[in-house]
Amino acid sequence: MENFTFFNPTKIEFGTGKELLIGRHLAEHGIKKVLLCYGSERIKREGLFDIVNQSLADKGIVIVELGGIVSNPVISKVREGIALARAHQVSAILSVGGGSVLDSSKAIAAGVRYDGDVWDLFVGKAPVESALPLFAILTLAATGSEMNAGAVVTNDETREKFFIMAPPLFPKVSIVNPALMQGVSRDYLVYSASDVIAHLIEAYFTATVHPKLQSRLVESLINTVIETTEALLADPADYGARAEFAWAATLALNGLTFSGVAGFSYPNHAIEHALSALFNVPHGAGLSVVVPAWMKWYRDRNPLQFERFAKNVFGVDTGEAGIAALQAWYDKIGTPTRLSQLGINESDLPAIVENARGNVRVFGIADTYTPEVVTAILKNAL
Amino acid sequence: MENFTFFNPTKIEFGTGKELLIGRHLAEHGIKKVLLCYGSERIKREGLFDIVNQSLADKGIVIVELGGIVSNPVISKVREGIALARAHQVSAILSVGGGSVLDSSKAIAAGVRYDGDVWDLFVGKAPVESALPLFAILTLAATGSEMNAGAVVTNDETREKFFIMAPPLFPKVSIVNPALMQGVSRDYLVYSASDVIAHLIEAYFTATVHPKLQSRLVESLINTVIETTEALLADPADYGARAEFAWAATLALNGLTFSGVAGFSYPNHAIEHALSALFNVPHGAGLSVVVPAWMKWYRDRNPLQFERFAKNVFGVDTGEAGIAALQAWYDKIGTPTRLSQLGINESDLPAIVENARGNVRVFGIADTYTPEVVTAILKNAL
Repeated sequence: MENFTFFNPTKIEFGTGKELLIGRHLAEHGIKKVLLCYGSERIKREGLFDIVNQSLADKGIVIVELGGIVSNPVISKVREGIALARAHQVSAILSVGGGSVLDSSKAIAAGVRYDGDVWDLFVGKAPVESALPLFAILTLAATGSEMNAGAVVTNDETREKFFIMAPPLFPKVSIVNPALMQGVSRDYLVYSASDVIAHLIEAYFTATVHPKLQSRLVESLINTVIETTEALLADPADYGARAEFAWAATLALNGLTFSGVAGFSYPNHAIEHALSALFNVPHGAGLSVVVPAWMKWYRDRNPLQFERFAKNVFGVDTGEAGIAALQAWYDKIGTPTRLSQLGINESDLPAIVENARGNVRVFGIADTYTPEVVTAILKNAL
Repeated sequence: MENFTFFNPTKIEFGTGKELLIGRHLAEHGIKKVLLCYGSERIKREGLFDIVNQSLADKGIVIVELGGIVSNPVISKVREGIALARAHQVSAILSVGGGSVLDSSKAIAAGVRYDGDVWDLFVGKAPVESALPLFAILTLAATGSEMNAGAVVTNDETREKFFIMAPPLFPKVSIVNPALMQGVSRDYLVYSASDVIAHLIEAYFTATVHPKLQSRLVESLINTVIETTEALLADPADYGARAEFAWAATLALNGLTFSGVAGFSYPNHAIEHALSALFNVPHGAGLSVVVPAWMKWYRDRNPLQFERFAKNVFGVDTGEAGIAALQAWYDKIGTPTRLSQLGINESDLPAIVENARGNVRVFGIADTYTPEVVTAILKNAL
């Protein structure tokens, strides 16, 4: 087991009706005016906006609104948020939405406290040293952003999809009410399952040090995602399954499974970010295409762990059979496993490979994931 | 899944050499003078005391010493610590030792900030509203106290072994260096294994709501404890096993496995505390006696979960066989499974049952765990 520091100060309020507490939590942190970030108008139609509004009004907290944040969120919108936050001198950011809204909120929170252009923080020109306090009400379980210090945003000019990560970006409080996720579409449910599984397998397979305890935890979470996704496809109103899915998504990227793990990398995310950046495909849909393709390329580099995965997740004997089982499961639940399903053809590969060069650089794996290697992996998904 | 709040702000510094950071962490919290609590003089003989001393001195932090804290720590010693902390106006408590030293440190930290007698906090006469900041260097992995807000102390006058639990008791920073635990005796290693398993099974079996995800996490941790205990008995210098054991012990009682779990209780702890309070037996040794006896009594109340345990931990088919396998494993590693091994006879039962009345009351389970029931359970361990 490698040396590590575990620190995760985010308070999670999990369960039905917890959104009613949002005003109280902001008030406890002394917040008087907040930038409320959201995506579509769905939260207004479905009544969540009114509940949040009332909870904040009850504590005398003033709201400045920033709506219209899109999936694969863009830095231009973040800049708009920073200007708005500054103009109104808000003292906190409240994210109401899924991972895209939350990651944009984190970027705004950091950007307000940084003198230069916020994209500097994504390209490593400056570190994230400070951020406005962040609060979140989650409406889609997938990214784990509600309990970690990372955020991914796309530069809509350069088509770079990069990330920031720093302790000031831990949300103070994240409200996770599985009942608010009942309206998530079938497609986004299965994309979310793919996203969570991808978070879990990157270190599981790539780490040079991966203690057995952490492998067990990862397998527990993957098995939960598989089981609860199937339950939710059968019955979207199954609250128990929705809740276990959501908590598994949070635990998949809150540091728990990475404690004591070393020498790991995020090749699947690095490659998928190129797909999202260029073709605006949903992140989870891109991942279910990239992951099996990458696994086939990577398997012989860590055969024992692939055998372990095959046995403990799908009850099959060989690493190869485990990969086939995962791909078959993706096909079964209806998340793409081929580039063609994303409308991407062999002729697009050079552009993807070129875009991925920046990603593998920021993920620190450019030496291994050369253009030739990325091409070979993507060809497994044609 | 039941509604829950998850909040655990303790920073864990895990791994070799991490004790060297203690001065820096205290300095970051603005500490100038600290009460250093420890148990035996072993930490002086083995050099840890010098390292801590130097690390604190480097930051100009003054030490006030409180040594001689014993296993099954007593409230009289806590009172001595409170007086010392007040007399020297320390601004923090540093625990260097195992769970007994840490729990005493927590009680001192709370007691300094409370005007009345510290035992009031244990009997519910007053809540723990505040505490001095706490720091820990752990030398024995078992109790999980390094990453939770609880503490158990015995009143040496009344022979009551009671607990306090409140957010101010979360350590700010806990240093867990598995290498510091290499000198733990064979006996204390197996008692620790028993303690960790007991932490994991109380809610697992007694909860009215216990999601499958949490069951999987519990089984992952139990399997890790079993495997690493055997590895350490074969080779006490196996750092990897020592580290997985230590991290499993921390995760077993840091809130993770309890998230979304409801309607659970601590009957084994309630009964064992009576053994420790009256006969000063090591907590883990008492638990390995009580747990199988309790399981036999309780099994029919939750047969499916006992079958699950049998299958996923010991690979056997029936709940009964699972209990027998656990007891056989305790026998194999050499932690007691019979009261007689603790020097306790049938004639002692009435006194234990009488003492346990207070414990089942503070644990909120007096209605179920009547004197007759506690007697029946203990008779399973004769």
